Amino acid sequence: MNTSQPQDTAPPPKTSRLARYFPFLDWGRGYGLTTFGDDLMAAVIVTIMLVPQALAYALLAGLPPEVGLYASILPLIAYAVFGTSRTLAVGPVAVVSLMTAAAVGQLALPGTADYIAAAVVLAFMSGLILVIMGLFRLGFLANFLSHPVIAGFITASGILIAASQLRHVFGIEASGHTLYEMAVSLAAGIGQANPATFAVGVATLAFLFGVRRWLKVLLTRIGVPVRAADIAAKVAPIAAVAATAYASALLNLPDQGVRIVGDIPQGLPPLTVPSIQLELWLQLAGAALLISIIGFVESVSVAQTLAAKRRERIDPDQELVGLGASNVAAAFSGGYPVTGGFARSVVNFDAGARTPAAGAFTAGGIALATLYLTPYLFHLPQATLAATIIVAVLSLVDFGVLRRTWTYSKADFAAVAATILTTLGIGVEAGVLAGVILSLVLFLYRTSRPHMAVVGLVPGTEHFRNVLRHEVKTSPRLLSLRVDESLYFANARYLEDRLYDMVAAQPELRHVVLMCPAVNEIDASALESLEAINHRLCELGVSFHLSEVKGPVMDRLQKTEFLDHLTGDVFLSHYQAVATLAPEILQGDALDAPAPQVARA
Amino acid sequence: MNTSQPQDTAPPPKTSRLARYFPFLDWGRGYGLTTFGDDLMAAVIVTIMLVPQALAYALLAGLPPEVGLYASILPLIAYAVFGTSRTLAVGPVAVVSLMTAAAVGQLALPGTADYIAAAVVLAFMSGLILVIMGLFRLGFLANFLSHPVIAGFITASGILIAASQLRHVFGIEASGHTLYEMAVSLAAGIGQANPATFAVGVATLAFLFGVRRWLKVLLTRIGVPVRAADIAAKVAPIAAVAATAYASALLNLPDQGVRIVGDIPQGLPPLTVPSIQLELWLQLAGAALLISIIGFVESVSVAQTLAAKRRERIDPDQELVGLGASNVAAAFSGGYPVTGGFARSVVNFDAGARTPAAGAFTAGGIALATLYLTPYLFHLPQATLAATIIVAVLSLVDFGVLRRTWTYSKADFAAVAATILTTLGIGVEAGVLAGVILSLVLFLYRTSRPHMAVVGLVPGTEHFRNVLRHEVKTSPRLLSLRVDESLYFANARYLEDRLYDMVAAQPELRHVVLMCPAVNEIDASALESLEAINHRLCELGVSFHLSEVKGPVMDRLQKTEFLDHLTGDVFLSHYQAVATLAPEILQGDALDAPAPQVARA
Repeated sequence: MNTSQPQDTAPPPKTSRLARYFPFLDWGRGYGLTTFGDDLMAAVIVTIMLVPQALAYALLAGLPPEVGLYASILPLIAYAVFGTSRTLAVGPVAVVSLMTAAAVGQLALPGTADYIAAAVVLAFMSGLILVIMGLFRLGFLANFLSHPVIAGFITASGILIAASQLRHVFGIEASGHTLYEMAVSLAAGIGQANPATFAVGVATLAFLFGVRRWLKVLLTRIGVPVRAADIAAKVAPIAAVAATAYASALLNLPDQGVRIVGDIPQGLPPLTVPSIQLELWLQLAGAALLISIIGFVESVSVAQTLAAKRRERIDPDQELVGLGASNVAAAFSGGYPVTGGFARSVVNFDAGARTPAAGAFTAGGIALATLYLTPYLFHLPQATLAATIIVAVLSLVDFGVLRRTWTYSKADFAAVAATILTTLGIGVEAGVLAGVILSLVLFLYRTSRPHMAVVGLVPGTEHFRNVLRHEVKTSPRLLSLRVDESLYFANARYLEDRLYDMVAAQPELRHVVLMCPAVNEIDASALESLEAINHRLCELGVSFHLSEVKGPVMDRLQKTEFLDHLTGDVFLSHYQAVATLAPEILQGDALDAPAPQVARA
Repeated sequence: MNTSQPQDTAPPPKTSRLARYFPFLDWGRGYGLTTFGDDLMAAVIVTIMLVPQALAYALLAGLPPEVGLYASILPLIAYAVFGTSRTLAVGPVAVVSLMTAAAVGQLALPGTADYIAAAVVLAFMSGLILVIMGLFRLGFLANFLSHPVIAGFITASGILIAASQLRHVFGIEASGHTLYEMAVSLAAGIGQANPATFAVGVATLAFLFGVRRWLKVLLTRIGVPVRAADIAAKVAPIAAVAATAYASALLNLPDQGVRIVGDIPQGLPPLTVPSIQLELWLQLAGAALLISIIGFVESVSVAQTLAAKRRERIDPDQELVGLGASNVAAAFSGGYPVTGGFARSVVNFDAGARTPAAGAFTAGGIALATLYLTPYLFHLPQATLAATIIVAVLSLVDFGVLRRTWTYSKADFAAVAATILTTLGIGVEAGVLAGVILSLVLFLYRTSRPHMAVVGLVPGTEHFRNVLRHEVKTSPRLLSLRVDESLYFANARYLEDRLYDMVAAQPELRHVVLMCPAVNEIDASALESLEAINHRLCELGVSFHLSEVKGPVMDRLQKTEFLDHLTGDVFLSHYQAVATLAPEILQGDALDAPAPQVARA
């Protein structure tokens, strides 16, 4: 790949309308034996990685282990048909499992038929929401989740998930939806910890952390390629699963009080039909919407990152359809909400997957596991699964986002902090909402008090800069005010107030020029304010001008009577305005004139 | 007033900290006999205008008539102490009375003690909310109500109010909170219309409309000064009140089935203590907040308009305190929510009020009315009051706002239309909320898909303009992209997508310059997107530059590692960027080069 030849970058190939909705028509055409081999190899590796994850995340969601496997078969095939990412690996993921537990746990007791039925409905509703969003091209809605809010949410979710799994490591009963409740419940139960369970849990944790820390280094040191070493480290949990299941059976650990996975029904997923009770739908609607959006955001960012590495493109709106189809498939095959997973997609990519067919082959692998592997999982301790979850989610925890946003933007910091604290203290849904609402409110607040600068001419140029930041030329007869924001209802009055104060402070004033290069819109409220300013300045004997008005803004102003009433002119460039209204500035004799007072927002 | 001498405009006098919170310390110092005479004259006229309004708006609010009078005594004195407008006339107003009826009507039956107690609590809560907003300087929150939303709300409220009063004109029982309910209820009852009541109502309507239409013209034609003629037309309702009350007594109209005002307790307002039932407070909280904000917005815009005419200034945050104090005073003297009224403030201004003392004198006038006038109001037909309300509110109705916003801005039109339809179809609170939420959502949507323009050099200048709108010079090696919006989480991804598409379509590209004169902020999400763009363009062999970055934005970028990683430079002006990166453009030999393709948002 020669990165210095931009002519490589051809425009994306035109796809037919049908291929837009069925991307496999596109990639399926050139499918050959080499690609098949690559995809199959990747599928084997992802299957090995996915089996323990599917079991573990089902446990986290409060569902029987087989539900995790069911959610890893048909959904993958649906994504292979409708998805646009060539390497995204779909299935149960940690954060969505936690959100499922939080939503369904309010309606039914874990393990009951009602609980499973509600999880199926949740998957179905998420699927419908995603498909509808995709068909109406509403993918942009996900953009209202800011990066820091997502980072904060994932970090807080990781902590909640890890905390929720500690009870399995200790072998005690504990509960709670907030970090505080979990801590209290764990502290109360810790006296009854089961030594054998604890031994299994700690050994698995130590093994997995050790693998993560040292296996890759060791393997590369003995000559294994980096990529293969990476993959080996990622599939290591299957070794822990095999070893502890064997040990559990050999030492008869259940007699020591170790909880095991137990009987997993052998066979392919059942056909399930989501319940259509209106009440249940209403109760789950909010959670389904949040799960859809969080799942989509997580998935699409992984897909985009991986696509960029190979100069492929994904279509976010079609991704909604793909993920939606996956969730609908999950609902009809006894599964629960799924989305694209970060770690397994990276493994799929690194293992050489070329097309979404790799996902379909993975589905085949998991189907084989449900048919033939489940008896061997009978003795698997739950503590092993809990340990794999803890190790997986702790890599999501990143408090660095707090430090980075604190340095860069206090508003972003506030949104992250609110997201983390609300998620830990109240719950996942409240956490996401708090972050989204706070970041929107802060954005609106900032635009309601825009930055304004009195500007002067940079000597020897045609450029104007803030008088407070640069050595510039001004005139007491002319006020050049640059507003750094669109003018709309929330800041129109603020502009009026600030402008009147400035005018009142500058008695020799004859002209005010509002410099509008950053004014992308003037709404009806702001237009009224400009009319009021024009009228008021006129009464004071000051004429009011505009400069550098953008084309679309000017088009709209021309539809109104504002320009007829305007006491001054509209100048194409601010330099022209100054040359016309205060030519003394250009002659350089006003350099030492005192700069007008300006307050900064 | 010589409007051509801007040196008149001295900076506003410095006021002491104490005088900021007690504005009368300021205007009270120079109070003399002439001012006293002016204020007293204005107060007499406003009192004559206010008596029928106070009775009528109490009726509209579903309250006994004396409550309207009580709300016109202490609240006026409180505003005189704490308010900053010299001419605002406070008291019961139509829209707030309607909102009071809507809020309290859900909790109790009109006329009951519970209903009156709830109105008192509503006034108290509004007062507290306003005072708190004032002390925390939250007056800017009112700016989130756009002018078109306010105009739409006032128009719809005017229609609702007029419709609600028709039953009094017909002398029938009718009810309903929406226009549809009212219409159905009126249609059902119209058969039982009372002829005598209808005669009184129609006669009063005809008289008031006639006065409004012709009295001013007639008076000015016979030599009465315009201002006096205006005032005469505004106080005419008192003549209708006197005439119909007299006729009602003389002809014994109650025996004909005409409903009269009846016994009004004679005497000064009682001392009332607002109930502190938590449940009641919670039920009224939303309504109290909306009444506070609507009342404040209505009042402050009147106050600002009048202040501007005399080159006085008001302090919006202190206005909150003033209106808050008025409402608290209303709550402790048996009143209901009040605010500054438009018509009566104009009369006060035209009648020559100089200071808020005029308001205090008006309070004295109303107090005298409660002591001595009430027996004469016994026979006053309710139809008279209904007719005065109808004439008053129909002047508020202005559907022109629909046409104006349709021409100028579809987003504003949508907000107005939603406000009007929701107010008429669902109710006043829902109407305001619909307007505010829709206008905010539309604003966010627009900023999430910012206008972007590929720009080129205007020959012979240093200015750059949209290639689609101007004859400009470009180069296929350089993409100059101007983004007309702050970069934040909601549009960061959109920028990435659009930029990648443009880059893909221009194979000879070597440099991308993002021109940022309209970028007032780059938040943490957008920073990540810029980093991603930089990284991706680097892989394509294209360097990424910025130009015309604003000072505050640059300050923040310098805190990050972004500038270290940036493959290109940051140019002070876009002209410098082009001179450095594509000097062939300046030599004039690229004028005929094909302009790059650009899609417009």
